[in-house]
Amino acid sequence: MENKDTWLESLITSTPQDGRELAIKMARKSIAAIQTDADIRKKLRADYANDTAQLIASANVIAIEFQTVAAANNYWKKEQKLK
Amino acid sequence: MENKDTWLESLITSTPQDGRELAIKMARKSIAAIQTDADIRKKLRADYANDTAQLIASANVIAIEFQTVAAANNYWKKEQKLK
Amino acid sequence: MENKDTWLESLITSTPQDGRELAIKMARKSIAAIQTDADIRKKLRADYANDTAQLIASANVIAIEFQTVAAANNYWKKEQKLK
Amino acid sequence: MENKDTWLESLITSTPQDGRELAIKMARKSIAAIQTDADIRKKLRADYANDTAQLIASANVIAIEFQTVAAANNYWKKEQKLK
Amino acid sequence: MENKDTWLESLITSTPQDGRELAIKMARKSIAAIQTDADIRKKLRADYANDTAQLIASANVIAIEFQTVAAANNYWKKEQKLK
Amino acid sequence: MENKDTWLESLITSTPQDGRELAIKMARKSIAAIQTDADIRKKLRADYANDTAQLIASANVIAIEFQTVAAANNYWKKEQKLK
Repeated sequence: MENKDTWLESLITSTPQDGRELAIKMARKSIAAIQTDADIRKKLRADYANDTAQLIASANVIAIEFQTVAAANNYWKKEQKLK
Repeated sequence: MENKDTWLESLITSTPQDGRELAIKMARKSIAAIQTDADIRKKLRADYANDTAQLIASANVIAIEFQTVAAANNYWKKEQKLK
Repeated sequence: MENKDTWLESLITSTPQDGRELAIKMARKSIAAIQTDADIRKKLRADYANDTAQLIASANVIAIEFQTVAAANNYWKKEQKLK
Repeated sequence: MENKDTWLESLITSTPQDGRELAIKMARKSIAAIQTDADIRKKLRADYANDTAQLIASANVIAIEFQTVAAANNYWKKEQKLK
Repeated sequence: MENKDTWLESLITSTPQDGRELAIKMARKSIAAIQTDADIRKKLRADYANDTAQLIASANVIAIEFQTVAAANNYWKKEQKLK
Repeated sequence: MENKDTWLESLITSTPQDGRELAIKMARKSIAAIQTDADIRKKLRADYANDTAQLIASANVIAIEFQTVAAANNYWKKEQKLK
């Protein structure tokens, strides 16, 4: 039931860095939703971690996910105002 | 008439997790709208679930769809305020 | 004069489902604007409907078009308020 | 001086259909800005007009350009209010 | 120190046409930031200027950059109001 | 622990040029998050720095990241008003 658990409780993170890590997690969870076998994913990982075209394509996904996370957090600007 | 039924009643979901699942559904329904034969889709599924480049490309689509769902739900921020 | 007719009167649709269909239509019309020969398009269709990489790329286009349609309709939220 | 002339006076169009045509023009002008030789472009055109992967990639560009044009025109909603 | 000079003073341009040229410059500067050798870039240029898939991919980058420039300039709408 | 350090303290930069450099850094850090071995990354770098398709794909990622940075900084427009 790996992909049925709730892994995305909120888009709100306390820092941009945490938002970045959430974006990476979102990208990974999308792949896990399609290829549900964790062992196959582990094997496939070697494929793309050494293929620059696929690394760049992965970075593209992370960039899009981060746009959403950053907008959800109003670019973490509110906290700056409170300081 | 599989693709003619109404599968998208609303973009509003109660949680980010549900929004994520809607985004995946939207991506899948796009493919079903082009390749309307469910049997062929099932066979094709084996192709991309084991091809990292295509898994990453699928994650790209999900990321874009989720941007729309997240914006529609105002990033699920209102509920947080009400709590 | 197939591509010169007015097929996009408005981005406003009554439901998200209709918006989805408009997004698919927009993607198809872009291809028709470049490959103007309907017979060639029909033949090419067999190419991409059985190629998962191209199906996923098509879903990417639909996702982008739907972002525009959904924003134009304010995510169909106004009607929900009126109910 | 083909690419030095002013071809983009404004992003405002009177109808969504005109906006769509502007988006296609913008995509084409980008290609012309990189491949400045019109004769080569004409020859290359045969390549992508018969290659579905490239047709879909072209539709992706048009979809992105149209997002910009549609936002610039506030999705052509103002005129609807005035009617 | 080619890539260390300040080439992006502002996202504001006086016309959409100038915005378009800035978007093209931004795309080119990204490539220069990764491939820092100008001579290699010149040789590589022949590769993509004659490859339609790469021309289309380049147009995709320009379309994304232009979204940013156009938003920064509020789609050049203010000036229209002042006229 | 290279990828666990905090490299993204803020999306706010003082100039568009700095924002551009942050966007490039974000793209690079995504790749480092997937391929965590710095030596392998150095070797892979030669692959994509000489492959125009991958250079263009990298520029696509940078363009998306920059959209986020530019929005976070309100396109650096506030400072212009203060001057």
